[in-house]
Amino acid sequence: MIIDCHGHYTTAPKALEDWRQRQIAALQDKSHRPSKGKLGISDDELRASLVNAQLKLQRERGTDLTIFSPRASGMSHHIGDATASQHWSEHCNDLIHRVCGLYPENFVGVCQLPQSPGVRPDNCIAELERCVTEFGFIGCNLNPDPSGGYWTDPPLTDRWWYPLYEKMVELDVPAMVHVSASCNPNFHFTGAHYINADTTAFMQFLTSDLFKDFPSLKFIIPHGGGAVPYHWGRYRGLAQDMKKPPLKELLLDNVYFDTCVYHLPGIELLTKVIPVENILFASEMVGAVRGLDPETGQYFDDTKRYIEAVPWLTAADRDKIFAGNARRVFSRLKL
Amino acid sequence: MIIDCHGHYTTAPKALEDWRQRQIAALQDKSHRPSKGKLGISDDELRASLVNAQLKLQRERGTDLTIFSPRASGMSHHIGDATASQHWSEHCNDLIHRVCGLYPENFVGVCQLPQSPGVRPDNCIAELERCVTEFGFIGCNLNPDPSGGYWTDPPLTDRWWYPLYEKMVELDVPAMVHVSASCNPNFHFTGAHYINADTTAFMQFLTSDLFKDFPSLKFIIPHGGGAVPYHWGRYRGLAQDMKKPPLKELLLDNVYFDTCVYHLPGIELLTKVIPVENILFASEMVGAVRGLDPETGQYFDDTKRYIEAVPWLTAADRDKIFAGNARRVFSRLKL
Repeated sequence: MIIDCHGHYTTAPKALEDWRQRQIAALQDKSHRPSKGKLGISDDELRASLVNAQLKLQRERGTDLTIFSPRASGMSHHIGDATASQHWSEHCNDLIHRVCGLYPENFVGVCQLPQSPGVRPDNCIAELERCVTEFGFIGCNLNPDPSGGYWTDPPLTDRWWYPLYEKMVELDVPAMVHVSASCNPNFHFTGAHYINADTTAFMQFLTSDLFKDFPSLKFIIPHGGGAVPYHWGRYRGLAQDMKKPPLKELLLDNVYFDTCVYHLPGIELLTKVIPVENILFASEMVGAVRGLDPETGQYFDDTKRYIEAVPWLTAADRDKIFAGNARRVFSRLKL
Repeated sequence: MIIDCHGHYTTAPKALEDWRQRQIAALQDKSHRPSKGKLGISDDELRASLVNAQLKLQRERGTDLTIFSPRASGMSHHIGDATASQHWSEHCNDLIHRVCGLYPENFVGVCQLPQSPGVRPDNCIAELERCVTEFGFIGCNLNPDPSGGYWTDPPLTDRWWYPLYEKMVELDVPAMVHVSASCNPNFHFTGAHYINADTTAFMQFLTSDLFKDFPSLKFIIPHGGGAVPYHWGRYRGLAQDMKKPPLKELLLDNVYFDTCVYHLPGIELLTKVIPVENILFASEMVGAVRGLDPETGQYFDDTKRYIEAVPWLTAADRDKIFAGNARRVFSRLKL
């Protein structure tokens, strides 16, 4: 079995975005009383949004199950207030739940959280609980920068986040650290903000005692861990200069990396420096990069090919990357 | 000859930091009339700060010339106003000039610019001109985020920066894109902010027409280009999805990467995906990581060893990385 731990519903029916645009327009009108309302999307529309996209690519590429969450850039926690974020997150998560119900062998859910800049993450606990206990979701996406590129909330290692972590530990679900759209013109979302957030989160973990406080808390750092594996020597050296234990001991019981790295040399580096136990297969399809690589004739984001092409990985290593590690990290996954 | 294109004066005599602390204290006193004042550092103190540090390491590691600039985290453009930044930058650059005068075979200067958040970079032109024409400096360090981690100024590709670029082109000097200390608790300076800024700048360049406007403008992205080489497939794919030309054609006449990557697998990746013509040797010693790598028994930042260990680099390739490319990019370098 091949589990893709990182897929977003980037192809959702247009009615979802229409609802969001109505919500955003209503935010300007102070007399408007916000309400969740209805999306009005049929099951057939959901099926149609998937059959020629994620389902087709799963079949063509030979992957089985996608751990599926709402579109990451769509979360846009910086828009509106906590109530707006709550209604929007509920709709997005409801849709993921319906998709998982329609295709239970192809998708399992991970939720968006109703974060909002400056609002304590305690407000996310109810939605996390709803998604895990009522919908059977197995994790959440946690945005380390709800401001959308201005980084005005505390680091992930601050006690600010602890109530949410307590609930994650209680429910036994991991979080993928994933920012959303950038409203800062300095940061292109998929080309800079995503990757920077990955690097930033890792360094926050490195400099903290978070995993002493939460020994069973688990994070997946997507996009191959941002810059981290490429600078693994720097991180080993920084930890050592700070008199910290080796990174393996310090972080690797709690921090995992996905394989959303869109060329073979990058995947080779990842599998050379990061223990195979800490690497989870992912492609983020249909996602950031959609074209064919002219150098290979294959899709940039068909990351399964790269993992298959790394000569030093054994069959047992590949089993771990493709499925075993995901089962361990997403311990509620029962398929 | 081996030219290290990235060294900061991290070992400057304590009197420099004392001056800075007096300046910062005086900023609180609104009645205080700011003045440049004197550092009171003797040539002997300068020599003593270098002989057992940069000079010793040059000799031990077999490098010849360091392209030398003030301490990057010390620039701290977010502290005080433009006048404070002006006085501080002048002192820092004056010291680099004196160091280059004392050891003209070992150091050549690159300047700090008196940037200040929200202040047009036009205010940096005079100091750049002073350092290049009076001191013989060959480049500058350009901070893409003078706010120190809140990214409140326009992207490097905005016309905001154009007057400075016009002067760089006129003087024929490149800039190393280098942020300074972070005052945002989310970002560790050497472990996140530096690397994020490198990645961010590259993506800004990728999405812009900057080099159509300035065909001879040159930037070095330090720390091995942040996350960029590791995600080279992502960047190739993003450019292609945006209908841009291939990255080589789009950027690589103007953008260069240094070798501050502190392990062999990272340097292997860099030299595998980035054309050898675009890679400049650098170690950033004495810098971010100071210890010995227990896996090799050598200093993490002794990057010359990694370049020597990459099996596919020819002698001609190494000559380019170690000296030829630096001579081309820093075209005012005459040694």
